[in-house]
Amino acid sequence: MHDFKNVALAAAVMICASSLRAAAPTAGELPAKKPLTVAEILAASAHTDWQTLDPQNTLYLELASGRVIIQLAPQFAPHHVANVEALAREGYFDGLWIIRAQDNYVVQWGDPDGKKPIHSAQRTAAAEFERSSRGVPLTPLTDFDTYAPEVGFSDGFPTAIDPKLGRAWLIHCYGMVGAGRDNDVDSGGGTELYAVIGQAPRHLDRNVTLLGKVVQGMELLSSLPRGTGPLGFYEKPEQRMLITAVKVASDLPESQRTPLEELRTDTQTFTDYIEARRNRHEEWFKVPAGHVDVCNLPIPVRPRMVPMATH
Amino acid sequence: MHDFKNVALAAAVMICASSLRAAAPTAGELPAKKPLTVAEILAASAHTDWQTLDPQNTLYLELASGRVIIQLAPQFAPHHVANVEALAREGYFDGLWIIRAQDNYVVQWGDPDGKKPIHSAQRTAAAEFERSSRGVPLTPLTDFDTYAPEVGFSDGFPTAIDPKLGRAWLIHCYGMVGAGRDNDVDSGGGTELYAVIGQAPRHLDRNVTLLGKVVQGMELLSSLPRGTGPLGFYEKPEQRMLITAVKVASDLPESQRTPLEELRTDTQTFTDYIEARRNRHEEWFKVPAGHVDVCNLPIPVRPRMVPMATH
Repeated sequence: MHDFKNVALAAAVMICASSLRAAAPTAGELPAKKPLTVAEILAASAHTDWQTLDPQNTLYLELASGRVIIQLAPQFAPHHVANVEALAREGYFDGLWIIRAQDNYVVQWGDPDGKKPIHSAQRTAAAEFERSSRGVPLTPLTDFDTYAPEVGFSDGFPTAIDPKLGRAWLIHCYGMVGAGRDNDVDSGGGTELYAVIGQAPRHLDRNVTLLGKVVQGMELLSSLPRGTGPLGFYEKPEQRMLITAVKVASDLPESQRTPLEELRTDTQTFTDYIEARRNRHEEWFKVPAGHVDVCNLPIPVRPRMVPMATH
Repeated sequence: MHDFKNVALAAAVMICASSLRAAAPTAGELPAKKPLTVAEILAASAHTDWQTLDPQNTLYLELASGRVIIQLAPQFAPHHVANVEALAREGYFDGLWIIRAQDNYVVQWGDPDGKKPIHSAQRTAAAEFERSSRGVPLTPLTDFDTYAPEVGFSDGFPTAIDPKLGRAWLIHCYGMVGAGRDNDVDSGGGTELYAVIGQAPRHLDRNVTLLGKVVQGMELLSSLPRGTGPLGFYEKPEQRMLITAVKVASDLPESQRTPLEELRTDTQTFTDYIEARRNRHEEWFKVPAGHVDVCNLPIPVRPRMVPMATH
């Protein structure tokens, strides 16, 4: 069995009594015709169903507790991504803090005073809340969405499309990363970033620039003590968690990178994964939901596996 | 301004840059005709819009970090609620632990070995996944729901109804509390309880008995370190958090209770609250969502306020 880490945990979700944990059914015990479970689909996937994360669009947020890995989305927010990478390269985030943790909402990091000098990067960038839907590949979800006319997955990101308007935008699912802003829509830019740690705050869609998603280490953010000030900001400096560094993965030597690969969302395996989460066939489930929300389909990510050589 | 605590934080949600935190608009600055914001609606509510939580259906989960307060739902799970109260009264939970924290899913507590003796309570109870919709009051949500034919709020709980089947059930929103079970549907009963700490796992609806929701102290559960074993179980006993006690509020003297009141979901104020969250009118928002998910409407809870005497 491959080490799917968080993927396998997310896939095998059930509310079981702890005493029977070991009794979960395994693939070998199932009748041949039974629809596959998530775990079985992933175990049977081809290595070509997976793609290595591009180190040039991968950000490492380094904390004392570990590394949070963020996959960037330049196809949706090219200027914000370029600016965040420029900020990282000039060391802007190093020595700053996680300054906010609001329960069931977001964790946010940056400069609490907004005064740290910026050199080669920009302090702000124009809004990238949405883009033309032209050229946006989409694996559509057939389920009705409460918020958007059409939803699905585009290059690994939960995406909404309004065909009438010809517009596309990223969706605020759990783990998505965006750029905080003030009331002026163009006041963001990436000096302050946030990650969603609760129920998808879909009312933020098209109101703020999303630029990526956490693919590993999410629990280091979501388990932070909540701030007790307004909006979950920490009230005392000593409550903030220090950011050791933020680095673009490609700037680090190979030996210091975390090689990950993600299930391609344009594959039959991913379509099978959606169906297996829409209607669970693990023995524990009695009533399949028959539907699935776009934010209940986290994209499987695993350590990169080198295909075996053929002899 | 009343102390709405978490309510006000949840209501005033926005992704603002920290440097402009103090610049949020206040009621006095808004033009007269502008639709009200969540904060304004709550501030203008009548005290009759609120109801005191019934201490006989309120559970206190006592941790070293503080008190988690759970409102029970006997109208949906009478036998589970009665059994959990019986378990609490015989001290079953006292000295047990939080044994599981799975990111973006659930925190679970109980006896890791399932062997602690039970005296007056029962070890299991028959499934209460759903009930007849007859007699279930509902403030319906007009927005389309991905999972259920009809959703809304019933006595403060997010509720789904299937009019064709004449069935009603509670919805797995953030903070909802349920009874873990094994593969046998009747193997639950409340000896192991869980709370939702992530994106609403709606695929669990009608598959497991929900019996209440956390109304205060949710952050004490959601910020726990995630377990690294399968399904987020803690691997070492010392990683578990001790449960000092679980008590029914009415069994404690008044001085030891936490008096709370909840916005009634059958009031015009609550309907206004839904609309204000469906279409945000705070200055920060540029594109109102026009829709709202049943799990993006946490029920406002605040410390009980004694109505002022008229002179």
